[in-house]
Amino acid sequence: MEGECRVAVVLPAGGCGERLGGCTPKQYCPVLGRPLISRTLEAFERVGWISDIVVVVAPESVDLMKNIIRRYGHKLVSLVEGGVTRHRSIFNGLRAFVEDHSLGPALKKPEVVIIHDAVRPFVDEETLLQVTSATRQYGAAGMVRPLVSTVIAPSSDGCLDHSLDRAKHRASEMPQAFLFDVLYKAYLQCSDYDLDFGTECLHLALAYSKTRAKLLEGPPDLWKVTYKRDLYAAESIIKDGISKHLCIITNIKEEAVQIGFRLHENLKSHIKVNKSFTGPVEFIEFLFHHLGNSQPKFLKQKSCKLIDLLQAAQAGASYQSVVVSQSGSEMQKLSKIRELAKEVQKSDLLLYGLLINFSKEESQLEDGARQASAIITALITDRNPALTGQVMVV
Amino acid sequence: MEGECRVAVVLPAGGCGERLGGCTPKQYCPVLGRPLISRTLEAFERVGWISDIVVVVAPESVDLMKNIIRRYGHKLVSLVEGGVTRHRSIFNGLRAFVEDHSLGPALKKPEVVIIHDAVRPFVDEETLLQVTSATRQYGAAGMVRPLVSTVIAPSSDGCLDHSLDRAKHRASEMPQAFLFDVLYKAYLQCSDYDLDFGTECLHLALAYSKTRAKLLEGPPDLWKVTYKRDLYAAESIIKDGISKHLCIITNIKEEAVQIGFRLHENLKSHIKVNKSFTGPVEFIEFLFHHLGNSQPKFLKQKSCKLIDLLQAAQAGASYQSVVVSQSGSEMQKLSKIRELAKEVQKSDLLLYGLLINFSKEESQLEDGARQASAIITALITDRNPALTGQVMVV
Ligand SMILES: [Mg+2]
Ligand SMILES: [Mg+2]
Repeated sequence: MEGECRVAVVLPAGGCGERLGGCTPKQYCPVLGRPLISRTLEAFERVGWISDIVVVVAPESVDLMKNIIRRYGHKLVSLVEGGVTRHRSIFNGLRAFVEDHSLGPALKKPEVVIIHDAVRPFVDEETLLQVTSATRQYGAAGMVRPLVSTVIAPSSDGCLDHSLDRAKHRASEMPQAFLFDVLYKAYLQCSDYDLDFGTECLHLALAYSKTRAKLLEGPPDLWKVTYKRDLYAAESIIKDGISKHLCIITNIKEEAVQIGFRLHENLKSHIKVNKSFTGPVEFIEFLFHHLGNSQPKFLKQKSCKLIDLLQAAQAGASYQSVVVSQSGSEMQKLSKIRELAKEVQKSDLLLYGLLINFSKEESQLEDGARQASAIITALITDRNPALTGQVMVV
Repeated sequence: MEGECRVAVVLPAGGCGERLGGCTPKQYCPVLGRPLISRTLEAFERVGWISDIVVVVAPESVDLMKNIIRRYGHKLVSLVEGGVTRHRSIFNGLRAFVEDHSLGPALKKPEVVIIHDAVRPFVDEETLLQVTSATRQYGAAGMVRPLVSTVIAPSSDGCLDHSLDRAKHRASEMPQAFLFDVLYKAYLQCSDYDLDFGTECLHLALAYSKTRAKLLEGPPDLWKVTYKRDLYAAESIIKDGISKHLCIITNIKEEAVQIGFRLHENLKSHIKVNKSFTGPVEFIEFLFHHLGNSQPKFLKQKSCKLIDLLQAAQAGASYQSVVVSQSGSEMQKLSKIRELAKEVQKSDLLLYGLLINFSKEESQLEDGARQASAIITALITDRNPALTGQVMVV
């Protein structure tokens, strides 16, 4: 986005999540140990050209949300108290740009405002660019998806009245974007009925600001986390994403380098292995599995103990998983791994041990590397904290 | 369902699964090691009053489907070759009840035919009863769900034309059911355009058989596995279901009974523990985690070795996971567990070791039981075959 266009986000997060069947609103449910809304905020914060994020929360969730902002270090976020319906909450969010609101002073008014849902964590920069660009051209824009199910209209007695042509309709998804004035004007002019029973911002823009929104086909991962199964699906998508980053670090002994090479070869088919390194590492093999795109900091350090490596690495990333594998049957190290795992788990690092009993024979070496790779993949994929500190044997 | 009403199922499974982004049609994708369609068939086979299941498959998938039927022991299934569209496939399926078809003789015509999707594995007897009963009263019936997203209609230039009132529309889901003659007549009379571009059987029944289907609100788990994330969600739902069945079996030594009791107490908060048993078991603790509602057979046996127990238990169930935990530091048993795990994995049993080093002190005993329970829960929840034969230590 070019510098001259100010873009802000309003994120209504006041819903009560009744569809999940639990009492925690779904935006606050943990997904891999982190509340869903924090993952959504992170997605916006990765985009450089967003000026403000207004999160609209239920009054009873203000403290919870403040804690989340502090715990995960969110920037750009302003909190506003929600209304009793989605539209009233969004309207409150918009007001934060034109008047002082209960939780702080007015924010600088943007040219474009993006409306999104707290429960759609997989929004990416490309989508945000598209919806913003289309908005600057058309005044409003929204993502749509093909309908998965046919939509039908029931008659008053609960029987089929008619069914809709699936090809002629779309599911309206998020994000949507609006010229700020288009949406704000629509909210100022719309009826109480709209505010209480409407769901579609694009409709308000059309009805009250005469703005026909551009509809853009979005990617499938924009779906709304609605049911419990959606939380599982979200978790799996995050795990899939995480599994793309893995470094293998070995020390400089010839045996270790060989094992590292074989693991690399075998892991390639399960996980994308970014790079392998050789360096003065305390353990013979050290597999580092990290989230995010940045190079772990510790690779720049020349020499340090494993625990320092792990903690240095933690500094930049939010959630990580580590596998240490050691060669030979140095059983005294087993209890050390457990202590170490307990220590680093405080910083959200998951550490597992893997003992590789390599024989010298070529065929067994290859077989061992294959088994070790399968175990590493399993540990990294499942990320189960209950197994940290355990030592697997190959 | 009373005996006088014959009910059959037609399961169109000819789709090409393009939405998954892979080339395996989604009905054949493995979910916890078993093709999705096999899980759907299992759901119907659990219901006693279904007479036939006609699976309509693409010609190129007939052999694959035959293998699945053999491998998982499906009864009641007849195969029919599909047409080029969903409606043509269903029509072919119906024809199997009135004329000899290419893959076998005609089946006995049912009063009610249920149409379902191969990619909706979580259909339950209650839903099938509801849809069948309503069909006997109304001539046709189908499950519906509230819309998750607002449905909108685009204009020809890709902008918003209008949005639909979410409260006045429903998503049409499966199963649907029809008096056989109602649906068959509709297919005989409908146009080629209907067969090629239509998607909704309820619409055909209305248009060509003047039958207004009863719409029934279905449970959320009836959703259609469409995207890759849906496979993960399906997997998690199955895992959740599986985790409800766990037996703790200990031998009759006092120490073992005590440990068994503590594990039971701790596991209760993670998993539903059905029962605990005490008997002449070779290992000190033996946790058996099984799928399905039937009592594992081996509980009736008086005395046998672990491997016999495991294999006897396997006979009735399709997929199981087992944890053996042993007390004391009998290290010579570690390699035995690995061999055993390899042996029973051939029968889809997953076996893990858990070594509990209990001290005599009360507080450590409790702490150990808590840790052991967390590990057992992790192993059972993740069901990761790569970790079988590994021994965890508490
Ligand atoms: Mg809206
Ligand atoms: Mg249909």
